[in-house]
Amino acid sequence: MELYLVIAIFVGSILALVFALIMAKRVMSFDEGTDRMKKISASIRSGANAYLKRQYTIVLIFFIVMFVILGAMAIFGLLTPYVPFAFITGGFFSGLSGFVGMKIATAANARTANACRTGLNKGLRVAFSAGSVMGFTVVGLGLLDISIWFTLLKFVFKLDAAGITAAMLTFGMGASSMALFARVGGGIFTKAADVGADLVGKVEAGIPEDDPRNPAVIADNVGDNVGDVAGMGADLYESYVGSVISCAALGVAAFSGNGDMQFKAMAIPMIMAALGILCSIIGTFFVRTGEKTEQKLLLKALSRGTNLAAILIALAAFPLIYFILGADHWTLYFAVLAGLIAGVLIGKSTEYFTSDTYKPTKKLASKSETGSATIIIGGLGLGMLSTALPIIIVGIAVLVAFFVSGGTLQAPQMGLYGIALAAVGMLSTLGITLATDAYGPVADNAGGIAEMSGLEPEVRERTDALDSLGNTTAATGKGFAIGSAALTALALIASYIDKVQTMSPDINYDSFSVMNPLVLIGLFIGACLPFVFAALTMDAVGRAAQSVVIEVRRQFKNIKGLMEGKADPDYAKCVDMCSRSSLKEMILPTVIAIIVPVIVGLVLGFYGVVGMLAGATASGFLMAIFMSNSGGAWDNAKKYIEAGNHGGKGSDQHKAAVVGDTVGDPFKDTSGPSINILIKLLSMVSIVFAALVVQFHILG
Amino acid sequence: MELYLVIAIFVGSILALVFALIMAKRVMSFDEGTDRMKKISASIRSGANAYLKRQYTIVLIFFIVMFVILGAMAIFGLLTPYVPFAFITGGFFSGLSGFVGMKIATAANARTANACRTGLNKGLRVAFSAGSVMGFTVVGLGLLDISIWFTLLKFVFKLDAAGITAAMLTFGMGASSMALFARVGGGIFTKAADVGADLVGKVEAGIPEDDPRNPAVIADNVGDNVGDVAGMGADLYESYVGSVISCAALGVAAFSGNGDMQFKAMAIPMIMAALGILCSIIGTFFVRTGEKTEQKLLLKALSRGTNLAAILIALAAFPLIYFILGADHWTLYFAVLAGLIAGVLIGKSTEYFTSDTYKPTKKLASKSETGSATIIIGGLGLGMLSTALPIIIVGIAVLVAFFVSGGTLQAPQMGLYGIALAAVGMLSTLGITLATDAYGPVADNAGGIAEMSGLEPEVRERTDALDSLGNTTAATGKGFAIGSAALTALALIASYIDKVQTMSPDINYDSFSVMNPLVLIGLFIGACLPFVFAALTMDAVGRAAQSVVIEVRRQFKNIKGLMEGKADPDYAKCVDMCSRSSLKEMILPTVIAIIVPVIVGLVLGFYGVVGMLAGATASGFLMAIFMSNSGGAWDNAKKYIEAGNHGGKGSDQHKAAVVGDTVGDPFKDTSGPSINILIKLLSMVSIVFAALVVQFHILG
Repeated sequence: MELYLVIAIFVGSILALVFALIMAKRVMSFDEGTDRMKKISASIRSGANAYLKRQYTIVLIFFIVMFVILGAMAIFGLLTPYVPFAFITGGFFSGLSGFVGMKIATAANARTANACRTGLNKGLRVAFSAGSVMGFTVVGLGLLDISIWFTLLKFVFKLDAAGITAAMLTFGMGASSMALFARVGGGIFTKAADVGADLVGKVEAGIPEDDPRNPAVIADNVGDNVGDVAGMGADLYESYVGSVISCAALGVAAFSGNGDMQFKAMAIPMIMAALGILCSIIGTFFVRTGEKTEQKLLLKALSRGTNLAAILIALAAFPLIYFILGADHWTLYFAVLAGLIAGVLIGKSTEYFTSDTYKPTKKLASKSETGSATIIIGGLGLGMLSTALPIIIVGIAVLVAFFVSGGTLQAPQMGLYGIALAAVGMLSTLGITLATDAYGPVADNAGGIAEMSGLEPEVRERTDALDSLGNTTAATGKGFAIGSAALTALALIASYIDKVQTMSPDINYDSFSVMNPLVLIGLFIGACLPFVFAALTMDAVGRAAQSVVIEVRRQFKNIKGLMEGKADPDYAKCVDMCSRSSLKEMILPTVIAIIVPVIVGLVLGFYGVVGMLAGATASGFLMAIFMSNSGGAWDNAKKYIEAGNHGGKGSDQHKAAVVGDTVGDPFKDTSGPSINILIKLLSMVSIVFAALVVQFHILG
Repeated sequence: MELYLVIAIFVGSILALVFALIMAKRVMSFDEGTDRMKKISASIRSGANAYLKRQYTIVLIFFIVMFVILGAMAIFGLLTPYVPFAFITGGFFSGLSGFVGMKIATAANARTANACRTGLNKGLRVAFSAGSVMGFTVVGLGLLDISIWFTLLKFVFKLDAAGITAAMLTFGMGASSMALFARVGGGIFTKAADVGADLVGKVEAGIPEDDPRNPAVIADNVGDNVGDVAGMGADLYESYVGSVISCAALGVAAFSGNGDMQFKAMAIPMIMAALGILCSIIGTFFVRTGEKTEQKLLLKALSRGTNLAAILIALAAFPLIYFILGADHWTLYFAVLAGLIAGVLIGKSTEYFTSDTYKPTKKLASKSETGSATIIIGGLGLGMLSTALPIIIVGIAVLVAFFVSGGTLQAPQMGLYGIALAAVGMLSTLGITLATDAYGPVADNAGGIAEMSGLEPEVRERTDALDSLGNTTAATGKGFAIGSAALTALALIASYIDKVQTMSPDINYDSFSVMNPLVLIGLFIGACLPFVFAALTMDAVGRAAQSVVIEVRRQFKNIKGLMEGKADPDYAKCVDMCSRSSLKEMILPTVIAIIVPVIVGLVLGFYGVVGMLAGATASGFLMAIFMSNSGGAWDNAKKYIEAGNHGGKGSDQHKAAVVGDTVGDPFKDTSGPSINILIKLLSMVSIVFAALVVQFHILG
């Protein structure tokens, strides 16, 4: 039986990769447009390529160092020998996901702009196809790695279930480390370029967005590709793989003592992922639109695809669980359903708080009437308030998933498996949700190219319509990412305790009372980490942006004839500037995320670690929502004003809104999304270093 | 023996009140200055009086409702009959503390301005004496109430130790409710007036701060008295009383089964408070300065007093603990010491992050060079980063206090008593630290009066020097308030568990594992509360400020000759406006703080409540530090620019800094300080409603 399951998973992953390839071919079949468009697109491409090459080189050094450390630990018996290799693989494939996404996005941007010259529907098709390439590459590669490692560990090395999941969790740690580098580095790059371009170009020099005279304009477009595309690809690869393997690990714990059921429980999340791929592919065929640029219609076009995929997986999950786990455990199905519904609801909540079709963002826009201070206070308040609903949604989902699965306060194992299944349910249709998310930056780039190439205004109008929709789908995608991150992080804490239990048998889920001072101090420290992490990444954006500002100012001053359009700015210099500072700045936050759990473990023992993980998950969830939603709302409030409300473009209100948007940039595209990765990476590092901590710790 | 102890406590409280009276007499012996000064001071006084009267009327209704609810619960046997009365008393005395503080502050403002005409030292003396009145009234009243209730419950009603502390915790709940109303209401008032006055007067009309032509100028000065003085008085009364009674309660739990030691353990925090009063009084005699307005010298003058008081109590605590608790428990002394040192260090950390003599605020000021967006991002990052140090300090203090006191992971009772003692240690010299804190708003008001009365520029220079110093001491005071709030909140969680245990004997400190889904969801909800609370209070300030802005604009437009100084603005209208909106807005946040713990308890049971309290304490501590320090740093960065750096007053950089300061206003004076009260109130409400929750709850 197990072999059939493995084959099914393998087939699912191949299906995704083949579909991604077909989509890529389709994108490439479109024309890149005029020579000027080709030239601009090539500059963006080469900038993005150059950046990723440098980023991966630095990350490679990190991976080599970690490989040596993990190897040494394996030699001393603190880890199994598969761990260092699993770590490297996870990092490699996470990076590859980002790389493929960037490749297709930089190939599709000019093609999208050119397609928009014919019509909106064609533009959407190109951009969405490019998004699909990324979406299905991420899920395809994720599932492929899982199935390969699973096959190797089970059939070649003949490990038992616990041994398999242990090695696979390390694979997750590799993926998370890479994702954090990509998100933080890319996030700093894109926002430094964006802020730099806006502050000097738009505010000081008074030239429009994406004006070719702005020296930072290419860097800005490169940033979209390395941050919003490559960073997101690595990030969601990590989320996807993390949710599947943490679920597999808890399945093993839940059916402890029953080897056959353990393998089945382990296979469930993988097969569900494979089924999700099939449902997502079907969904993509239902994405099409007419020629009206109204956001509602466009949103409907995309929603049709994602909703269909969600309904299909909701139907397919039932027989899956019923037939594989048997009638005794069919109620686990409701856990999957809880996850799916929670994901949709968090997305809706995000949309409500950040889309300018609803009251909160409209009200926020009106606060521009009394200046930038009031719109800042308003946006911060909006983001903080918007944490309440997702907390309640996740809370209910966790409780439902826990209790329907048969978890009790005395024997929570099955309930924890249910919680992990909810996370997998939430991410099962990632193929298509990521496609709707990743197409946004492509449309954004297309708009930039349209502007820089001097295409007809209606082209820009169409790309703007696609881009603005991208903001909403990105918000929804973020909802899923944050929700699944919280559930996966909880699952990983449980896995950590399982791991500790193998070494300290008297420890169990009940051992970590919040009144234990070590747990409590851990909780405080953990809750503090997202704050510190957000501060470091925001500061990094600030510093990097400052260097761009200075460079752009220098070019405006020194390059004769630039403002008159007679001379070209030195785009490459700005790209280089952003690369250098973002690469420098990405190291500290990531290293902190890896070192702190080890230090906390060595000082406060595993009690402290569990407290830290719980604290970081709770506060990270809140901070991620707060920062994403504040940022999204400011962005859309600005767009709402630009659409002619509250004085429109160029008014004082607009200027106030631009300040809000600029503050929101690092919030929503650097710090916020990185925190999702952070909370999972903390758990994975803790799991990998568990043996070290259990053997050597000062307190507890 | 017990009677001696009670007498000592009683004497301490009387000492404080007598000293406050002497200081008040001294303040009143100074002259109020010119007729114009008298008139302005009278307007401020009458505005503040009128506001507090209205506030107390509304709060009275709330207290009557709560009295009825608690009375009904007492009738149904869910509470002891003393509880409703204790609740009322706590509220009454907390309100009284604020009222007395406001009275003396509004009497001292013109006197301080007038004294500054003679010299800086005289000005400091008046302002500091006024601060002392408030400081010693708060501690005097606090200790008086505690000793009266203690006497009544022990010697008249003959309750046992557990019964006494149960009733006294309700007394704390009354104080906390009142404090929350006062802080939130006053905080909204003062910031609405401040923001309104600044936005229209300074930014739109271009007239200087405290210009008599600004219709909101009196409201602004009233705000200082009802928010920064009356609000702070009620707040710190609550902190002081809360730390003492929660410590007493844990002392009873720690020596369970030994009635004699229980009473001694209970008396320790009270006697330490009484000793602290004595040390504080001695300290006040060492506060004096020369005639130089340099901040360093002034700070030294104040520090001399506070440091001396801290050293004295550190010396006095040792014999106190050694002789009362005996040689077996003398190590509890180190817990006190840990608290004292942690308080000082958190204060230093706050000072480092918010004073313009250090790098962070200087760097923040430099971010004004690239506009308001970068100074906002920088300030938010600064505040978030500044959470790390206090977390580590509190973490170490908790661990030290826990383990030196003889707490173990198996039997934590004595350790928890140690943690509570650390909080008492931190607050023992509140008399003098509050004096140095409360004198700030007096100096601020004095500056306003100097400006409005057209006094000589050197007078304003002197009041400015005093005021600027007030910002630093306020920051330090906030450090103490936040640190003690976290420790007290932890102590209260322990008290809650003790309370639950009396009804569900199989529950103990070990029963609340973070992996219990009810605890976990509680943790998430609790962590979310400070975010929601901050959002609500910030929004309230925004709305209230907006109404003031509209009113000020209307007066500028409609009152002929106002700008030329030929006609007087309608000050009273603005005061009324601020009163009305702040009173309306203060209700929702406070009611939420009282209702949520009951709802969480009824749905998630006591497991959920403990999780909620732990989550709220961790996240509340972080949010309070973040918001206070961001706000403080923005304020001082603005002042640093006004002192002539980065372009000085009126430059674009200054304008950017004003935006930062305006965002920081609700951060540091409304939301931040209220969160300290929130986290304690949540625990106290949970304790009072524990019987209800234990009997009726859905899950767990």
